[in-house]
Amino acid sequence: MASALLKSRVRRPKYLERLAKAEDLIDLFPHNSYIGWSGFTGVGYPKKVPTALADHVEKNNLQGKLKYNLFVGASSGAETENRWARLNMIERRSPHQVGKEIARGINNGNIQFFDKHLSMFPVDLMYGYYTMHKENNRLDVTIVEASAITEDGGIIPGASVGASPELIQMADKIIIEVNTAAPSFEGLHDITMTDLPPRRKPYLIMAPEDRIGTPHIPIDPDRVVAIVESDYPDQTQPNAAEDDTSRAIASNLIEFLKHEVSHGRLPANLLPIQSGIGNIANAVIGGLSHGDNFTNLKVWTEVLQDSFLDLFDSGHLDFATATSIRFSPEGFKRFYDGWEDYAPKLLLRSQQVSNSPEIIRRLGVIGMNTPVEVDIYAHANSTCVMGSRMLNGLGGSADFLRSAKYSIMHTPSTRPTKSDPHGVSCIVPMCTHVDQTEHDLDVVVTEQGLADVRGLSPKERARVIIKKCAHPDYQPILQDYFDRAEYECLKKGWGHEPHLLWNAFDMHRNLNEKGTMKTTTWD
Amino acid sequence: MASALLKSRVRRPKYLERLAKAEDLIDLFPHNSYIGWSGFTGVGYPKKVPTALADHVEKNNLQGKLKYNLFVGASSGAETENRWARLNMIERRSPHQVGKEIARGINNGNIQFFDKHLSMFPVDLMYGYYTMHKENNRLDVTIVEASAITEDGGIIPGASVGASPELIQMADKIIIEVNTAAPSFEGLHDITMTDLPPRRKPYLIMAPEDRIGTPHIPIDPDRVVAIVESDYPDQTQPNAAEDDTSRAIASNLIEFLKHEVSHGRLPANLLPIQSGIGNIANAVIGGLSHGDNFTNLKVWTEVLQDSFLDLFDSGHLDFATATSIRFSPEGFKRFYDGWEDYAPKLLLRSQQVSNSPEIIRRLGVIGMNTPVEVDIYAHANSTCVMGSRMLNGLGGSADFLRSAKYSIMHTPSTRPTKSDPHGVSCIVPMCTHVDQTEHDLDVVVTEQGLADVRGLSPKERARVIIKKCAHPDYQPILQDYFDRAEYECLKKGWGHEPHLLWNAFDMHRNLNEKGTMKTTTWD
Repeated sequence: MASALLKSRVRRPKYLERLAKAEDLIDLFPHNSYIGWSGFTGVGYPKKVPTALADHVEKNNLQGKLKYNLFVGASSGAETENRWARLNMIERRSPHQVGKEIARGINNGNIQFFDKHLSMFPVDLMYGYYTMHKENNRLDVTIVEASAITEDGGIIPGASVGASPELIQMADKIIIEVNTAAPSFEGLHDITMTDLPPRRKPYLIMAPEDRIGTPHIPIDPDRVVAIVESDYPDQTQPNAAEDDTSRAIASNLIEFLKHEVSHGRLPANLLPIQSGIGNIANAVIGGLSHGDNFTNLKVWTEVLQDSFLDLFDSGHLDFATATSIRFSPEGFKRFYDGWEDYAPKLLLRSQQVSNSPEIIRRLGVIGMNTPVEVDIYAHANSTCVMGSRMLNGLGGSADFLRSAKYSIMHTPSTRPTKSDPHGVSCIVPMCTHVDQTEHDLDVVVTEQGLADVRGLSPKERARVIIKKCAHPDYQPILQDYFDRAEYECLKKGWGHEPHLLWNAFDMHRNLNEKGTMKTTTWD
Repeated sequence: MASALLKSRVRRPKYLERLAKAEDLIDLFPHNSYIGWSGFTGVGYPKKVPTALADHVEKNNLQGKLKYNLFVGASSGAETENRWARLNMIERRSPHQVGKEIARGINNGNIQFFDKHLSMFPVDLMYGYYTMHKENNRLDVTIVEASAITEDGGIIPGASVGASPELIQMADKIIIEVNTAAPSFEGLHDITMTDLPPRRKPYLIMAPEDRIGTPHIPIDPDRVVAIVESDYPDQTQPNAAEDDTSRAIASNLIEFLKHEVSHGRLPANLLPIQSGIGNIANAVIGGLSHGDNFTNLKVWTEVLQDSFLDLFDSGHLDFATATSIRFSPEGFKRFYDGWEDYAPKLLLRSQQVSNSPEIIRRLGVIGMNTPVEVDIYAHANSTCVMGSRMLNGLGGSADFLRSAKYSIMHTPSTRPTKSDPHGVSCIVPMCTHVDQTEHDLDVVVTEQGLADVRGLSPKERARVIIKKCAHPDYQPILQDYFDRAEYECLKKGWGHEPHLLWNAFDMHRNLNEKGTMKTTTWD
């Protein structure tokens, strides 16, 4: 029987005839099914059915025998996808993930992971690119979390939209988990569905606050096979704290933005800001909250974290839009308590829209991101440590950095190893994996300083990045690499972007063999 | 005095008061000027003034003493920019170039070359990114070729639009070369100017034939400082001929397109086609002309070459749009003779529009391009041989390959060296320079076969690319690399995208030292 709370959220009573318990739905998930989940950056993901399936596998020792092809807009909650990975339930996964166990499965060869631009994943899914080798070129089941359901059966998502519209469009069967442990998010969404060429239309968004869609995801009710009540909220973690390094990076960045305003290349209230997750992003957004450097700001981004609440509270932020709000538990409490203030200034959209190059370019977004490493010519590695080991995936980094007006990579100049607090230089001669090209980045910034590489040739870029961004311990090593490469390559008439190709990864080799990049010489 | 022909082309008589000879304009070009030229892929570029400046430098031995910062949408005619490079007249150049002398200058350190996505160069120019270090953040002079001038002084370009709208918007002074040696191209253009954020608008183009602009480039007549009559046409070369290899590649590609139609992922008349310059592109477009595989085709591309005339003549092509038509001299004759037939099916736009990710993604373009090399994980190098030596630049390759529905790299599996007809494998373990990432490419095709890597994990991609695309001489070498890398990296828990990082460029090292990649072993 449906609870009164559930009935208040499900405004289409016929759906309640399909009310089910998660553990009774196991048969809908035969081995090798193609499954979609709602969710993005660990919020708005289905909880009950994935947990019931994991329990089923655990109880019946089906590890490695029930494996699924799993598609989620971005990462899901650790207790679901990470547990699935630990139970060897994931055969294939796209396009982004977070979790130790799932990363382990990807890097030990157990999980086939396809890492795609978050803006492109949903339409590629609609093109059939992820289900090509199935007979009907569709997903078998999509499980989507709703915070409420409209009279005509439409889904009001929770704290994320992600790829839910397309995962639903592509699904044979749909299971809706109605989450009654968090409030209804009705009114916070602007939903657009995906048509395919030649019938695609422009996104008529000219400012972050523009609405172009519906407040719910429209759905064919006949494809809904079950409704499940979900009784616990998104399991998020506290945000990474600022530290001296991230504050120094933020300070360099804010100086740069002031410089651009004073030279007439940015309006006084800047242009829409994109910022990611992590302590540098936290410090940057924190830096915009303090003082009165900039007012009437707007945000066009992929995901909002707690620091944006501070920015709202500072009075400097007029409007923010994203595909998910990934607050900490305290942040969510603050958000619900201040709903009347925050909700009118906030809009959640599908990841295809939040990360759309069309809109990012039109709005002139200021894009900021943290890489694994940046090289002296301004390529960046966003995904694979040592060129091989996957972290979380590309995410929206390249969606924003390719199309933003300002494409900014911020990183500490070094990271620690076990034996050396500065054992890894984040500025390297050549990235071991390239996700952002030299044609994409405008600015590289570390706690040491800021390199503005707009319009510079590769050799000019190298000089300024080494001088402004590299840690003093690594400046002579990198400068020596560059000088030798320049000499050798000019001699051969190859001097546009000089490299010592056979030694380009010697710093990484030293890191691997000696626990620090510092001992590198180029003889 | 203006000739009757010139008068017939210049419908604003006041302009003729500023009629000048090129050699009288030298004083407008002091050392270190920032100069814009019209032109794209060697058509529609100014001829008289650049030639007069080169003559001036040559006559007065000013090589290296009169140097300029030169910005052109893409490449200009060899007798202009290549001659300027030979005379050491170019200090800085962006965003793309063609010519032995200019490439030499870039690779010997003489020319600072900044290589940018052709869709982004014009707006970055408007942002002031190329003139930041000048006092007034503008270009000093833009020289633009017109095929006619309207009553209100607007410019009717010739065979290309390129970045002319923005080069004109950014210029303090404008010189118009009216070319009377070729016909007026009036009616063939759809021109949009560039507003800056927050005032940018969507490009409301839903099909290749949609017009959203004006037939001319609007201009402030007060900034026009001189009109010069230009008396010789674009100096183009014959197109590269098809050969057995390019025909085999085209045949593999056309089979793939038929396969996609039969599986319902493409309409019977495909989606708009983008194809580049060169013999493979020639063979592909030739292949679409022969037989009746596909009809009612449309083209959304950067540049049209002669083979598109064949495609029009075959009756299979309904409409084509680009930013330039770079025909051979014979092709231009054919085009002018058939103007009445071709012109209604053709539209030239600015490069910011022809290469717009917004429109490419909306239309679902089929993008095809030729790289320097592709690696086993589907990254591609489009610009720098041996990671260092610049060829022509990125061009529009990444504009199309990032956003196309089908992102296709076509290449011969090998290229010859002096000592070995198959000394270079175009499939390598790791690209020495990455311009297109693994997140961007859907299909790699050589004369050996076609690898469809959509939705595949890196290790799956490597297996299919080696098997389908590599030359038989290199298959065992590449497979051995992959097997060893997989073994080593899985052992270390780094197995997402396995590399032997310290040996990843051994094939290139062998090429450099022994003139062939074939002797490579991985011991």
